[in-house]
Amino acid sequence: MTDLAPALALDRSGLPADGAPAAIIVARDVADVQAAVRRARAERLVVVTRGAGSGLAGGAVAGDGALVLDLSQLDRIRSIDAVDGTADVEAGVITAHLDAAARAHGLFYAPDPGSVGISTIGGNIATNAGGLRGAKYGVTRDAVLSVDVVRADGSLVRLGRPTIKGVTGYDLAGLVVGSEGTLGVVVAARVRLLPIPRRVATASAFFATLEDAADAVAAIARSGARPAVLEILDGETLGAIDALEGSALRARGEALLLAQTDGFGAEEEIAVVTEALSAAATHHEWTADLETAATLLHARRQALPALERLGRPVIEDIAVPRSRLAEAVRGIRAIAARREVPIYVFGHAGDGNLHPIIVVDPSLDELPAAAVEAADDIFALALELGGTVTAEHGIGRLKREWARRELGPEVVAVHDAIKAVFDPDGILNPGAAY
Amino acid sequence: MTDLAPALALDRSGLPADGAPAAIIVARDVADVQAAVRRARAERLVVVTRGAGSGLAGGAVAGDGALVLDLSQLDRIRSIDAVDGTADVEAGVITAHLDAAARAHGLFYAPDPGSVGISTIGGNIATNAGGLRGAKYGVTRDAVLSVDVVRADGSLVRLGRPTIKGVTGYDLAGLVVGSEGTLGVVVAARVRLLPIPRRVATASAFFATLEDAADAVAAIARSGARPAVLEILDGETLGAIDALEGSALRARGEALLLAQTDGFGAEEEIAVVTEALSAAATHHEWTADLETAATLLHARRQALPALERLGRPVIEDIAVPRSRLAEAVRGIRAIAARREVPIYVFGHAGDGNLHPIIVVDPSLDELPAAAVEAADDIFALALELGGTVTAEHGIGRLKREWARRELGPEVVAVHDAIKAVFDPDGILNPGAAY
Repeated sequence: MTDLAPALALDRSGLPADGAPAAIIVARDVADVQAAVRRARAERLVVVTRGAGSGLAGGAVAGDGALVLDLSQLDRIRSIDAVDGTADVEAGVITAHLDAAARAHGLFYAPDPGSVGISTIGGNIATNAGGLRGAKYGVTRDAVLSVDVVRADGSLVRLGRPTIKGVTGYDLAGLVVGSEGTLGVVVAARVRLLPIPRRVATASAFFATLEDAADAVAAIARSGARPAVLEILDGETLGAIDALEGSALRARGEALLLAQTDGFGAEEEIAVVTEALSAAATHHEWTADLETAATLLHARRQALPALERLGRPVIEDIAVPRSRLAEAVRGIRAIAARREVPIYVFGHAGDGNLHPIIVVDPSLDELPAAAVEAADDIFALALELGGTVTAEHGIGRLKREWARRELGPEVVAVHDAIKAVFDPDGILNPGAAY
Repeated sequence: MTDLAPALALDRSGLPADGAPAAIIVARDVADVQAAVRRARAERLVVVTRGAGSGLAGGAVAGDGALVLDLSQLDRIRSIDAVDGTADVEAGVITAHLDAAARAHGLFYAPDPGSVGISTIGGNIATNAGGLRGAKYGVTRDAVLSVDVVRADGSLVRLGRPTIKGVTGYDLAGLVVGSEGTLGVVVAARVRLLPIPRRVATASAFFATLEDAADAVAAIARSGARPAVLEILDGETLGAIDALEGSALRARGEALLLAQTDGFGAEEEIAVVTEALSAAATHHEWTADLETAATLLHARRQALPALERLGRPVIEDIAVPRSRLAEAVRGIRAIAARREVPIYVFGHAGDGNLHPIIVVDPSLDELPAAAVEAADDIFALALELGGTVTAEHGIGRLKREWARRELGPEVVAVHDAIKAVFDPDGILNPGAAY
C-alpha cells in the first residue's frame, strides 16, 4: 500500500502502514526476543510481533516508530509426548508442521485455520485462530495449555498449566490467547494433541438457494450428529472456484454444504447428517473415500484464492447464533443489493461463522465508499442478530471501532486496565486487539 | 467446626470459619445481588458468594465480618435453544437440572462434577469444575460462552461472547471462570450444550496393582481411542465401596479402571480401549447395556461417601501428565508408608487427575500432623512430576500456600494486579483463588 513499508511491516489484511518501522529484528532465540523488548522499552518504540504475516485484520501492521519483531525463526518443535497428548513448540512453528509431526505419533493438532500451511502457532495464538474443524474441536484457545511470554519488561514467564486439567489461579494463558501481542510476546506454548480419528466421512449437498442451505444447517444441529466440519458456500463463490479450478460446481446448485464427520462412527454419523439435510437439498451424496473428500475440501480452501483473482477481497468474519443463519444470509443479500457491491458468502456454518467477502477494484488506493458502507452494514447485522463482528480473524487494527461497539465502554475500560497490568508503558502492539 | 458459624458460612471442605459472618443474604434476583454488593462496599464487609455450599476447597467459607451472599434462589433456566446448542441459566441452577432440561431437547450439558446432583452452575463456574467426562468433553470453562457479573461497584456487566465462536477482545469470561468469586459475582451464564451421544459403551477392568492400571491408562492414550470417561480406583477404595454397597469389587483385583466411550462408534471404540488395556489387566469386560454401566459408575460415585463412613476424608486433587501416572501412584504409596497414614486413591485417570484421600479421625478438632505432612508431600510430588496441586476442586482457602508455590511470585503479582482491576477495595472473597 505504501512504498515506505517493507513486507515485514504488513500482513494480509490489505491495511497500509503509516510510515516505515524504526527497526526490524528477526529473533533467533528467546534471548533475542527479550533483548528486543528491552531495547524497545529503552528507546520508547512499540513492539509489533509477527509470525508469518498471514493475519487478516492488521494485527501485525507496523507503522512509524515501530520495532518489528519477527519470530518465524523460532521454529523448533521441542517435544511431543504421545501418552500425555501434548507438544511443546516455539512460536514460529508453521501450524501444518506441528500437525504433521503429531501425526507421526498417531495424534493431530486440531485447530486448522485456512492459513494452516503458512501461518504460525504464535500467530494462531495471537488471534485465537479458528478453522474448518472448529465445530467439533474448538479453536486455538481450546488447544493451548500454557504459554511462555516475554513481558513488557523483558522478563520471561510461563502462564497456564502444565497438565490437560488444572485450576490453580486465574486463566492467564487463556487471557493471552487472542490478545494479539498486546499483553506480551508469546515465544513458546504447550498445546494439546488428540488421537487421529480412525475414520472420516464426507458429504456434499447442493441447494437451490443459500437460505435452503442455512435451513439444512439448523436441521443438522437438531439431528444429534456433530460434524467436525460443516462448511457453506454460495453460488457466486462456487462460480469463482469453477473459474479458478475448471470445476463445474455452480452448475449443480446455488449453494453447497460440505460436512465431514470423524471418529469410530463416522459413516453412521454422516448418514444422520445427510438424512437431516435431505429435505432442503436438491442433491446430496457422501463418501468415505479420502481422495474424494480431499478434492471437496480443496475446493473449499480455494474460495479465497478464487476471489483474489477477481479483485481485492475485503474479508468479513461475523458469527451469529446458528438459528439466525438464514436471516444473516438474507440480510447480506439485501446489503449487497442496497449498496450495489458484489458480496460472496462462505464460512464455517457449524459455528454460525460467515465470511462475507466484498470484492473491490484492486487498482484503487482506498476502499470505495459503498464497500465501506456495506462492511459497516454487515457488522451491524451481526450485532443485531445477537452475533459478533469477528469469529476467528481478530480485531487487529481493522475492526477496532466495531469491537468497541460490540464490547461497550464499560468492558473496554476493563480491557484498558488489564492492558495496563501487563504493559504499563503501552509498548506492546498498541492499537490492536480491541 | 465452630459453634459460631452457621451452615451457610461453610462448605464441604471441612475448613472452619474464623467467627460468624456479619450478614447472610439470600438473593431472589439480580437486583438483590447488586444491593448486597453495594451494601458490602458501603459497610466495608467482604462478600462471600455461595451456591450449594458443595465446594471442597473452602472457597465459600465465610468468617468474621463477611456478608454471605447465597445465590441458590436464582435458579431459573431462562432459555434453551436446540439449534444454537446454548442455554441461558441463572447461577443457582443445579447442574443436573440443567442437564435434564437440555436432554428434553436432545442435548446434554457436558461438565459433570461428582457433585452434579447438588452443586450449582454458579459454583461450577466459580471453581471451573471438572468431572467424569472431562477427558473427552473438557471442564466448565470449555462450556461457558458468557457470564453476567455483578461487579464490585454493584454494576452488572456481561463478559464473553454470545456465539459459539468469537474473538472480540480479551477472554474475560474465561478469566472469571475459576476465579472463585474474587473478580465479581456471577449471576447468570450462557453455556454450550452438545448433542446426546447416540450410543454409550462401558468397560471395566481389574488389575493386580494400581501401577498396572496406570500403565493401562498410558496404553489407552496410545491406542487412538478417546474415552469420555476413564476412572481409576485403588483396592482400598474398592474395599470401602464394598463395605457401603455390599458389592464384591475388591475380590476381583487391587485396582479398577472404568472406561466409557460414546458417540456413533462407541462399541468399536470400547473394543479398542479393552484391547489396549488387556495386556495389563487380570480381567476385563465391556457392555453396551446402560443399566450395567450405571451400576459401575454408581460404584465410582460412591467412592467419597464410602470413605466418609471411615472418618473425615481430606481430599486431594492433583493432576500429573498421564505419562507420570504410575510414578505418581508409587509416590503416593511411599508417602502413605512414610507418614503412616491411610491414603485412598481414585480419580479421573484420563486427565491424569488423582484424588488421594487421607482419612483422619473425625473426633479430632485439628488435622493430625502426619496427615498435614502427607498432604504436603502429595502436593510436592505433583509439582515434582510436572503437575498441578489442583486439577478441578480449586484453591479456595485450603491450598493458597501451595498455589503460590505452583505459580511463583511473579505470576502471583499478576494475579494481584488483575484482582485490583476488578475489585479495587478487595471486598470480593479475599483470600480465595490463589
